[in-house]
Amino acid sequence: MSSMRAAVMRGDRFAVEERPIPIPIAGEVLVKVRACGICGSDLHYFHHIDQMIENVRALGAPTESMERTVREGPILGHEFVCEIAAFGPQTTRTLEVGARVCSMPFVLKDGAPVLIGSTPETSGAYAEYMLLTEAFLLPVDAAIPDSAAALVEPLGIAVHAVNKSAISSDDVAVIVGCGPIGLAIIAVLRARGFTQIIASDLSPKRRALAATMGASLVVDAAADSVIAAASRAAPGAPLVVFENTGAHEMLHKLVLQAPQNTKIVGTGIPAGQESFLPMAAIAKELQLIFVIYYTAAEFAEALELIRHGVYDWRVMITGSVGLAGVTQAFHDLADPERHAKILIEPWAA
Amino acid sequence: MSSMRAAVMRGDRFAVEERPIPIPIAGEVLVKVRACGICGSDLHYFHHIDQMIENVRALGAPTESMERTVREGPILGHEFVCEIAAFGPQTTRTLEVGARVCSMPFVLKDGAPVLIGSTPETSGAYAEYMLLTEAFLLPVDAAIPDSAAALVEPLGIAVHAVNKSAISSDDVAVIVGCGPIGLAIIAVLRARGFTQIIASDLSPKRRALAATMGASLVVDAAADSVIAAASRAAPGAPLVVFENTGAHEMLHKLVLQAPQNTKIVGTGIPAGQESFLPMAAIAKELQLIFVIYYTAAEFAEALELIRHGVYDWRVMITGSVGLAGVTQAFHDLADPERHAKILIEPWAA
Repeated sequence: MSSMRAAVMRGDRFAVEERPIPIPIAGEVLVKVRACGICGSDLHYFHHIDQMIENVRALGAPTESMERTVREGPILGHEFVCEIAAFGPQTTRTLEVGARVCSMPFVLKDGAPVLIGSTPETSGAYAEYMLLTEAFLLPVDAAIPDSAAALVEPLGIAVHAVNKSAISSDDVAVIVGCGPIGLAIIAVLRARGFTQIIASDLSPKRRALAATMGASLVVDAAADSVIAAASRAAPGAPLVVFENTGAHEMLHKLVLQAPQNTKIVGTGIPAGQESFLPMAAIAKELQLIFVIYYTAAEFAEALELIRHGVYDWRVMITGSVGLAGVTQAFHDLADPERHAKILIEPWAA
Repeated sequence: MSSMRAAVMRGDRFAVEERPIPIPIAGEVLVKVRACGICGSDLHYFHHIDQMIENVRALGAPTESMERTVREGPILGHEFVCEIAAFGPQTTRTLEVGARVCSMPFVLKDGAPVLIGSTPETSGAYAEYMLLTEAFLLPVDAAIPDSAAALVEPLGIAVHAVNKSAISSDDVAVIVGCGPIGLAIIAVLRARGFTQIIASDLSPKRRALAATMGASLVVDAAADSVIAAASRAAPGAPLVVFENTGAHEMLHKLVLQAPQNTKIVGTGIPAGQESFLPMAAIAKELQLIFVIYYTAAEFAEALELIRHGVYDWRVMITGSVGLAGVTQAFHDLADPERHAKILIEPWAA
């Protein structure tokens, strides 16, 4: 046992390749991947990596590591549940080999967190094995199935987005885009007792999921403005808009439509530059709050929300594939009528 | 006494015209204008009113009132100190005729605040007389000269911007653009005990004023990045950037340069659309907080700051003109080496 199978991104497809099983260094554990969700940011990386590198170059930041990763073949996957296979040196071994765990998708390299899947040295969970930092492990108890545990990561983003929004009980939440992050935000808001949650999506399936998750009103984005619908539902109430689509010109539209004092929380990532009208944002005192990731406490809170059953993860999982099915899954996820979240089970046939 | 002199905006100049002295209705007072500052937003209106109307049209909001105001000749002026000349019906008359007052630049019309200078019915302080809503009047005591009282309005914007930023003692304040608002923000931050205030401007005169106001470090915007300077001065400290220039592409540059978790507070108003890279804003969890105006409490706090001498208003006033000098003053304000704030004294020769 010295090699493993991995779904390696090669241009416009994922190839199942043999790779060496990575060897844990100090503070690391080798884990066997049980399941891994396909994230919207994985889709973004698959479709837009060339533009992402250009954007990073425009930022004046180094692109060598991104380019090397693309050359060597990225192994993505940061929404995972695993079991411990072996401990590296200088580990506390508080958990046992075989224990099921999840983790924030970072490994510490020289004390700094590096995103799993972003470099060849921190390969992700589209593979049979990967390395994690022991200090980040959270045990997953037997009551939580793999399918639920694989959703802790996107739920953690939702917990973080809601925290950063500082939404108060007088506010009306507006959910623009009901993909996995939008749906998770609805679940977190419901868990915290918010009742005015107005959601919109172009897809009937996604709108049905939004209602299931607890949206108080669901709007067809093609037929109505969700901002207008929210203003009708709660005239004069301040809005907190969660923008989860990353669609081109969406920020511009929201800035034009938003009433006075609206907060717009951006979780969706547009591929390139976006323009908007600052005069409108200033005249209405808008706030644009951009978010990504979570704190360790927020990630742990997401696991607790799943443990306590306040997040209906079952409706989220709409398919599962083995490593050979990853390319097809990426194509299938383009159809919101068919899919919300597809899990990769690297050990499945 | 039934007519007054006013400096009326006519295309690319201000004409001194005779206008009827307005008659106060219920709740209003007629005031005699003692002094009025020329605001950056007046300059913006003078140079960009056509584009402003187009922008409002793009917002889907009505433009009829703006167009009618331009046709009839706008009387601008919202940074004023006045004295009470006569009371309208249904007024409490708590203050006396002759009392010096300032006010937020709004009059209540059917219960809703209308910006002074924005309609023919709410003409501004580039005139010998104007109407104010009695309920908004703040008495200006004898210790506060007219030149100081005329600066309450821009100082109120600074109080509001600092409040909205929620800046904390661990943060470093970065002031981009040291016009009257940037300088007032420095003064408010100093009054509240902040000591890390890094300011930048292209103009040596403005940079000297920033140092006088209490900036801890002043940067030539042409020679150095103020963000880089702030990061060197306080490595790792969160930044709160006050963007007061409204310059084209400034938001884009700040988003690219800002370190993780920076807040960017926008007080400067770009004339049209601006583009930026949301991917950078998301990756760094930036917040864009757009501000305008103030609450009544913040406006009153600004008057208190002036009363207690914590705002060095003397260095701000770099000139004064009568109504016939307004056109020249608008041209002179284009040179930051010569001017910060010019006061209009409508009764001066």
